[in-house]
Order: sequence, then C-alpha cells, then structure tokens
Amino acid sequence: MKTIGIIGGMGPLATVHLYERIVFRTKASKDQEHIHVLIDSNTNIPDRTKAILGQGLDPTVELLKSAKNLESIGADFLIMPCNTAHYFIDEVSKDISIPFINMLDETVKYTYNKYGKDTVVGILATDGTIKSKIYEDYYSKVGIKTVIPQKNQDRIMKFIYDVIKRGNFELGTDIFFEVVNELKELGANAFLLGCTELSSAQYLFKFEGDYINPMEVLAEKSIIFAGGILN
Amino acid sequence: MKTIGIIGGMGPLATVHLYERIVFRTKASKDQEHIHVLIDSNTNIPDRTKAILGQGLDPTVELLKSAKNLESIGADFLIMPCNTAHYFIDEVSKDISIPFINMLDETVKYTYNKYGKDTVVGILATDGTIKSKIYEDYYSKVGIKTVIPQKNQDRIMKFIYDVIKRGNFELGTDIFFEVVNELKELGANAFLLGCTELSSAQYLFKFEGDYINPMEVLAEKSIIFAGGILN
Repeated sequence: MKTIGIIGGMGPLATVHLYERIVFRTKASKDQEHIHVLIDSNTNIPDRTKAILGQGLDPTVELLKSAKNLESIGADFLIMPCNTAHYFIDEVSKDISIPFINMLDETVKYTYNKYGKDTVVGILATDGTIKSKIYEDYYSKVGIKTVIPQKNQDRIMKFIYDVIKRGNFELGTDIFFEVVNELKELGANAFLLGCTELSSAQYLFKFEGDYINPMEVLAEKSIIFAGGILN
Repeated sequence: MKTIGIIGGMGPLATVHLYERIVFRTKASKDQEHIHVLIDSNTNIPDRTKAILGQGLDPTVELLKSAKNLESIGADFLIMPCNTAHYFIDEVSKDISIPFINMLDETVKYTYNKYGKDTVVGILATDGTIKSKIYEDYYSKVGIKTVIPQKNQDRIMKFIYDVIKRGNFELGTDIFFEVVNELKELGANAFLLGCTELSSAQYLFKFEGDYINPMEVLAEKSIIFAGGILN
C-alpha cells in the first residue's frame, strides 16, 4: 500500500479528525493492515484567510516545507485537510514530485455524482475561501451553481474561530444553523462544509442532512488511492 | 515551542487519541498557538507482543527508521504511544540524538505522586507487556507492588485485539471489567491501563474510577516539555 502524507495543523483538530476518519474507514483486522500515514501538523503555517485578504504572511513557504519534509521521509502522495489552503495548492504542487490529491476537485466530483448538475450548493466557509471564490470557480467548471451568505458570513467566522478553533464547544451550533437557514432561503438544497473545522463540527455535534463534507470525501479517496479497502 | 515527534501506528487508533489529547489539552486560541507535531503512523512496525514472546520479527528496525525520520524533519523530542514497544526503547534511543520521553517512567512517577508508595497496581496489558515484566520492574524501582491477572489474561487480550484493534466497539466492556474485578480480588486499588488500546477504550467508553492512563500522562508531559500550557 502507498504511504499517505498529510500537511496538517490547519487547524490541528481538523487534522486529528481526518487521521481518525482514515483509521476508522480502513478495513483492517490488525495494526499492520492499516495504511502508513505521515503527518506534519505544522502550526507554523500562517493563517490562510488573512493571507488571501492581504493581511498576513504568505503560507506557501511553510506549506512547501511540510510537503518536502513528508516527501523526504517516504510519503507517496499528499493531502491537505484545509479548504482555504487549497488556494495555494498549485504553487506547492509545482515544487514536489509526488501526486497531491486535491480535496476541492474530489468534493466537486462527489457533489456532481450525488446531487447532480442542477443542485444549488450553499457554501459555508471562511472569509478567505469565500473571497477567493475558489469553491465557486471549482463548482462552475461542472456547471453547478453556488450561493453564499449575504447577511450572516460573520456568524460562520465566529463559529469557526470562536467555537471550534478555540474549543468552546459548549457554545453549541445555533449560529451555525442560522447561516444554514439563510442559505436555504437563498435557494440552496445542499450545504458545503467548506472549512475543515466545519467537518470537525459535524463529527463533534453529529448533525445530519444534505451536508457535503470534503474531509470525509478526502478520507475515502485517500484510502482507495493508497490501496486500502473501505470499511 | 519544541516540536513533538510521535512514533505511532501501534495501533493507529491509539496514535489518533494521543494526538487528539495533545490538541485538546493545549491552551491555544488559534492554530499558531498549538504545538508543532510530527507523526509517523508506521504500520510496518511488527507486532511487539509477538516479538517479545519470540514468535515474530524484531520491531527495532522499523522503530529506529521512524525515530530517525522524525528527527530528520525537525522533531525536538520523541514519544511513543505503545506500552509494549517500550521494551525496545533503550535499543532505539542509543542511535538517535534527541530526547525520548519514556511513557512508563512518567506513568510510574504519576502513580507514586497520586496514589503513594503503598498502593497496589493491577496491570491490564498485552501478554507481551505482562511476560516482559516491564511494568513490574519499573514499579518495583520505586517500591510499588503490582498484581497481574491469574485467570483472565486471555480476556484482556481478546478485549485489546478483538474489540479495540478490530473496531468491534459494539461488543462493549464486559470482558474488560471481569479482568478489573479479578485484579480487585487480588488486592489492587489502582488499575493501570497498560496498553494504549485500553487508553483509547477509556476515551471511547468513558469509564471512570482509579484508572491510571499512561497516554493521558504522556500527553500532559509532552505539552509541558514542548513549552505549551495545559488547558
């Protein structure tokens, strides 16, 4: 089986959850049947949203350092559990010689296969991901329409940064569902958890419905690409 | 802050949980305040119990490979969330030049400080850990007595390998508590979760009482040694 390299730490909890999903979703009856996974939970990577908004350091240097380190110790391919960081994936990919599985590409394929071309995807993501229009662009390539919050984007940022990244889980999901409801009113019939902290939130709070979870898509794809068997 | 290197994959779920505990127990308000963690979830490491019982490959080669890889990409110190693997720690330590925090040493210190010298520790662990007498030896250095299962050791192996390592969580904890009860009858007043799969079991099944959890001890020690602040 191939060895998976994870560029992590964006945030660390999302990386924990991706790694856990890979372990849980791999069919294995003993340690040695699991996939070899290398993780660089690199918390020196600057904030991606701030960089996209022109208010912070370029994360490419640290992303590339992690990519090269993982390649040097035997990763056969790379993945990155941070949607916003995919804004920089081409810049990182060009300096490494192993494949980089693009979580956004995989998520768009998954959406198309599950919901069809005529779905309208409501995007729940950081200001960086929203402003960069990265998901809008990826979805438009296959003809899928997207909508973004018009009134409540500050609430989703609050949920991501104050509830999840700070670990204040007792604050609950009320502000999250206010944003979901706004997206519903704007015509969305599927909801993209377009930030890995929101994927983590789904594992923590166990909410169900028409949520598209890129981290789960990535975990499945990585297991198959590595040559493992899905549970 | 120092960078933590984790030699993992023994088993992968235990490594997920140690990494999660480090993230949850670190006081941080954003990604960049978390500790940089490098993980080699090396599932090529042969079964440690089999090796100690003379029935399997020596795990030292793969353990050392992981240690050197983690050192080469910037780990400042190493930890290893597998009690049984500590049988080989001296062999691995002598060929690397960064510190290796010994989970068993830390657990013995913790036990002494919390329960005192006159406690009797009941050991719940793999056949390899039991046969190697590694915990018995570590505890006897500080004068703490230990007892091991006389009738039910096969049940604890079944719980570790069939329930936890195979992910058959629906089988529950009945066989685990049968062993705990035997240790109680043998005079134990504190119970060592002497296999990281048992630490994982405590997180999964949330059982409470006088359980000594070496993985929790190691997570705390690692955060402090790295220069982080405990939550």
